[in-house]
Amino acid sequence: MEIDERRAGHNMREVYLIGFGQIPVSKGREMRGRYMAREAITAALESATVEPADVSALFVGNMMAGMLAQQQQLGPLFADISGFRGVESMTLEAACGSGAAAARVGFSAIAGGLHDLVVVCGLERMTQAPREQITAALATAADWELEGVHGESFISLNARLMAMYMKSHSVTPEQFAPFAIAAHTNAMNNPNALLHKPIDLDAYLGSKMLSEPVKLMDAPPTCDGCAAVVLATRDVADAARRSGAPVVRMLASAVGTDSLAIDRRDNPLTLAGAEISSCKAYEQAGVTPESIDIFELHDAYTVITALSLEAAGFAKPGEGVRLGEEGVTAIDGRLPIATMGGLKARGHPVGATGIYQLVETTQQLTGTAGANQVKDPTIAMVQNIGGTGATVVTHILGV
Amino acid sequence: MEIDERRAGHNMREVYLIGFGQIPVSKGREMRGRYMAREAITAALESATVEPADVSALFVGNMMAGMLAQQQQLGPLFADISGFRGVESMTLEAACGSGAAAARVGFSAIAGGLHDLVVVCGLERMTQAPREQITAALATAADWELEGVHGESFISLNARLMAMYMKSHSVTPEQFAPFAIAAHTNAMNNPNALLHKPIDLDAYLGSKMLSEPVKLMDAPPTCDGCAAVVLATRDVADAARRSGAPVVRMLASAVGTDSLAIDRRDNPLTLAGAEISSCKAYEQAGVTPESIDIFELHDAYTVITALSLEAAGFAKPGEGVRLGEEGVTAIDGRLPIATMGGLKARGHPVGATGIYQLVETTQQLTGTAGANQVKDPTIAMVQNIGGTGATVVTHILGV
Repeated sequence: MEIDERRAGHNMREVYLIGFGQIPVSKGREMRGRYMAREAITAALESATVEPADVSALFVGNMMAGMLAQQQQLGPLFADISGFRGVESMTLEAACGSGAAAARVGFSAIAGGLHDLVVVCGLERMTQAPREQITAALATAADWELEGVHGESFISLNARLMAMYMKSHSVTPEQFAPFAIAAHTNAMNNPNALLHKPIDLDAYLGSKMLSEPVKLMDAPPTCDGCAAVVLATRDVADAARRSGAPVVRMLASAVGTDSLAIDRRDNPLTLAGAEISSCKAYEQAGVTPESIDIFELHDAYTVITALSLEAAGFAKPGEGVRLGEEGVTAIDGRLPIATMGGLKARGHPVGATGIYQLVETTQQLTGTAGANQVKDPTIAMVQNIGGTGATVVTHILGV
Repeated sequence: MEIDERRAGHNMREVYLIGFGQIPVSKGREMRGRYMAREAITAALESATVEPADVSALFVGNMMAGMLAQQQQLGPLFADISGFRGVESMTLEAACGSGAAAARVGFSAIAGGLHDLVVVCGLERMTQAPREQITAALATAADWELEGVHGESFISLNARLMAMYMKSHSVTPEQFAPFAIAAHTNAMNNPNALLHKPIDLDAYLGSKMLSEPVKLMDAPPTCDGCAAVVLATRDVADAARRSGAPVVRMLASAVGTDSLAIDRRDNPLTLAGAEISSCKAYEQAGVTPESIDIFELHDAYTVITALSLEAAGFAKPGEGVRLGEEGVTAIDGRLPIATMGGLKARGHPVGATGIYQLVETTQQLTGTAGANQVKDPTIAMVQNIGGTGATVVTHILGV
């Protein structure tokens, strides 16, 4: 029996993102998760010009609430507090890719004809926990048996990838700097970003070494955040657009995966999950990398930025860093990335990140990105990664 | 703008369960979760007469691996070890309803046209953790802010419900006994059940008081388990049936939710989430409670059994216990429940329970339930609950 995912999908409906809400990414905020969620969800519904009673499902992306806040079942909890108790609801976990995984399930519900209007919410609240608890919680994204138990942390695994990349491709530390510098520059104009502090090459090179060769400026900050989007059918989207809602079409939604453990991969410098996820998304949307005007990628670590650009077909192996050096990925370049600060400077509230990415990309496509507005983008790709490339969720949005 | 979930769904495809695998529910087994999953998934694929290469997505139900085993991202981890690395994969969490929540997403993927063949796996491995860690992990199913932080445990919350039920409806402890006794009896003939020990009324009444009025024999045992099912389109199911696979149609898949906190509900003795979930399922399947031949319900606590029977329309408020007393819910009764031992005696490996329920129901519908075979069932309802009724996932299967 031969089965191919590509055979499926012929009868699916068009899916639209019709509204969004976000709260500023922060550190040490007292507000509990449920109230963060209510704020983001309420803003998203208002933006979509719909009411809580219009919502028929809620999908929540979260990685650590059970481990750090003694709270699971976020789905019904957030539905209840947001005014639509009773609807279908559940939590999606794919480590740092949890937010986009929830969006993928929301997309499927609309595309497949199961729901007409759903909310997708990403939440992570980490900074109230002690540092060692956060580190342990993040390490659950890796393969515990093959990596975590041997003392590997999420940072040390990314350090291994970065060292391997530098050695294989004769790349110097300086070459990663443009990604971090541009992210910090872009965050300056994003009021919802955590960091509003420009950095230069000296600041990058002089930043604290976390795990050779990963420096503080290669890594994302620990933070709290919550964002939400409303997904709906074309009919609902048409009505929302007439009411002034920001509407973009979701042209593709795809997930690719890989082994969790780096050592189980043929070539750790190839993000196979990202290749699969990107290829599926291109095929669904009927586009090629050349059509992409913005790539909101998962810049959790500068080496992941380079590897993501390569896996998605924008650069050959070892040449991802060049796109940063040559300004291609700058806000005014051919392929802007991290346009509102990215994980590096907007911040990486783990399970919320994938939703912040969708929100920011919608701002770009609807011309409301403010000072960081990219000129007339029509197609954008958004990619959210769990672990060191184990889960990769890609969405392509268009106007 | 008016949106109603019922408007959706008209173009959905038929969904079939075409194979299953389960490992015996156990305590203190040394095998790590990934190997339990590989065993159950491999058995499910063999039963469905398909190969790992035929699988295009894996949805995993799990509640506690992050908290108790330092491992998240079970989706790609299990896909990798089961021979289909790279496919779409993610974890679904809905507390004790996680297994069925994963099945719901698998159902949606097939019904909606996103995939033609998917695997759904439920896993929980708890018994290697210290007792207090397990209790804390289970408490995350409740509302931490309103319940957990005040010292409520999952047992104490169910004790509150049971006390309320007994008082409101003048029900005595003896009246709950038939549910527990029948579950233990049924488990005797299930080689995959945890408990193979018949109990009588004296044993029930004399069992240790856990939290007044909940006794040991009202509650499910802590245990480990893993089960998997294969879901597919009609075309795939037809081919599988010709190859000898056990095939049943999934006539309905529905989720209803409620507040997590009992005190936020108008009437805690009405499981509103179960009412919503059951009603949606009946409507999807085009059946009424009278059509249901077997009800594999979520007998986590005897009071939940009574409340579930009432919420699903099989008994009036306060009369659920009578169905046990009158033998209606016995294996040879009009509406058998817990036919292979239920949560009480097969065991309740939390995130796996919803999948064990689907497996056992498929055994019944395909006439392979052995000594516990119900006579000629054609339609069965399966219900899995997260928390004290916060998430309720209902499936209706038919042959």
